[in-house]
Amino acid sequence: MPRHVQFLTEHSVSRIPPILCAIILIFPKCYPDRMKFYFAFDSDESIRNICNEITGMTYTPDIDEADVVFFGPKPQIGKSTKILQRLYAGTDDLNLSSIPAGITVLSNAGGYNEPVAETVFALLLSHYKKVCRHNSDMHAGIYKKLGVETLFGKRIGIYGFGGIGQQVAKIASVMGMQVAAYSRHRIPFPDVTWHDSLEKLAESIDILVICTPLSPETKGIINASILDRFKGNCIVNIARANIVDQDSMLSFLSRNSDKYFLTDVWWGEPNIKVIPPENCVVTPHIGGNGGEYRNEAFARAFRSVKSFLEGNMHNVVK
Amino acid sequence: MPRHVQFLTEHSVSRIPPILCAIILIFPKCYPDRMKFYFAFDSDESIRNICNEITGMTYTPDIDEADVVFFGPKPQIGKSTKILQRLYAGTDDLNLSSIPAGITVLSNAGGYNEPVAETVFALLLSHYKKVCRHNSDMHAGIYKKLGVETLFGKRIGIYGFGGIGQQVAKIASVMGMQVAAYSRHRIPFPDVTWHDSLEKLAESIDILVICTPLSPETKGIINASILDRFKGNCIVNIARANIVDQDSMLSFLSRNSDKYFLTDVWWGEPNIKVIPPENCVVTPHIGGNGGEYRNEAFARAFRSVKSFLEGNMHNVVK
Repeated sequence: MPRHVQFLTEHSVSRIPPILCAIILIFPKCYPDRMKFYFAFDSDESIRNICNEITGMTYTPDIDEADVVFFGPKPQIGKSTKILQRLYAGTDDLNLSSIPAGITVLSNAGGYNEPVAETVFALLLSHYKKVCRHNSDMHAGIYKKLGVETLFGKRIGIYGFGGIGQQVAKIASVMGMQVAAYSRHRIPFPDVTWHDSLEKLAESIDILVICTPLSPETKGIINASILDRFKGNCIVNIARANIVDQDSMLSFLSRNSDKYFLTDVWWGEPNIKVIPPENCVVTPHIGGNGGEYRNEAFARAFRSVKSFLEGNMHNVVK
Repeated sequence: MPRHVQFLTEHSVSRIPPILCAIILIFPKCYPDRMKFYFAFDSDESIRNICNEITGMTYTPDIDEADVVFFGPKPQIGKSTKILQRLYAGTDDLNLSSIPAGITVLSNAGGYNEPVAETVFALLLSHYKKVCRHNSDMHAGIYKKLGVETLFGKRIGIYGFGGIGQQVAKIASVMGMQVAAYSRHRIPFPDVTWHDSLEKLAESIDILVICTPLSPETKGIINASILDRFKGNCIVNIARANIVDQDSMLSFLSRNSDKYFLTDVWWGEPNIKVIPPENCVVTPHIGGNGGEYRNEAFARAFRSVKSFLEGNMHNVVK
């Protein structure tokens, strides 16, 4: 294990003076070929080769030899583990305090932006075009046009403007929607109207899309107060169920049969204790899934480690 | 009726020498305020005011006074009719030979680009994310992830590259798809791979989207020969049913249960004589529908007439 990588992972980078940090960060670029990685998930040779090509590191089947462990649902830690790189975008379900000091945990934020943003539009478009009901009618020989809507011209409000929120904004803009957003961090983005609070965003849009990570700050943040201000028609949750307060949302849907909750996540999933009401369209957390896309998402996790070793702190969650 | 407008509509513009044409076309800009329009569809004052604002013409309830007649399903002709402007994008169902010489017929091509292109993605995304089946399961308390796909990285082939095809291409590009196209007229467009024939397009893509108008040349053009070359997964028809040869497609779907036909149009609609097979997703020609969008589509028809009077020949179909 090169000493500077050990140094980087054993200390909080933010405590290192910038000049020393810059010197340290130049070096790791030379050393990935001496490092080893382990896969804490089912893998075949082809995906190991992709990892090797992207990172320069060598695969080991022995976790105790591995400097970097790539993992899916559960992290595994070996004797040499310095970096835990998750394959998933989110890390809200991890118990970070149980991971020993000196081990850096990286998310795969950005790893699934496109399929997740697609799922927002899968929910919105199938709802607005009444695809399921129309298709079911046509298969029964019934030709009946139900009222449909277009997204063109509608005001979409994006809460959380990370990679997924930005991809939602790009698609919405091309579709001719008016894009507004609220996020802790504003980033330069064309044709986006920024709001100072979630309340102000909720008041001024037709469609609210929740794209923020789940954290102690965002848990239950979509509550009665926000829902009361929402005058639009649809709320889409593509993030995590518990960002939305369950009682508030169920009450809102019960009181407003003409408003819809389109969601890829559900409270208590995979156990469905509360059956979704009629004005819900629900998919079972398939946003990040994507058949052949899996290799692309994994490749992004491999690039995430490489990027960290090159001094980029974007995906560091611990 | 100003003489030059009469001249324009009584003669094929292509027969006018370019310099004379240019002189003629400068003049009409001054005259719309002397012209009158009639609506051969149910309308209210607000939409008449929009037409007046856009065109400068005055509404008349007497068709015989109107220079321009806007129509939906059926054209109506009065004593003064010089221009028939359709509200729909397509004109394939009109019997143009029955319309007297001297009357110009204009389509509303481009009038519905966004909602129609949205419908392509409504069909594709609801299919690839299995929205209907997933939602039905979740409402039955069943949490089961079925295999889903992402559009990211897939190769989409667009047949017909007018306004709708271009809008499909824009959305597909933003979604990270590889865009290919075949069209009689190539237009400069970023990130599109052009093919020399429909056959070559069909051979090299995952998804074929039909966006071409129905005409004697395109009727039945998606036949067994094209379908045999298609190695992809989905064919989307957003145009007109009869561009696809019915027997060839039904045979193709019967032989390839893993391939899908996603379509907003159906042979013989609104009479469904053939029930769609399982590997079809069908909506009842709702592509151009869009609730509040109606005024926007109508405004585009008004601008089409204005544009014609300013010398633009884009939407002339007769």
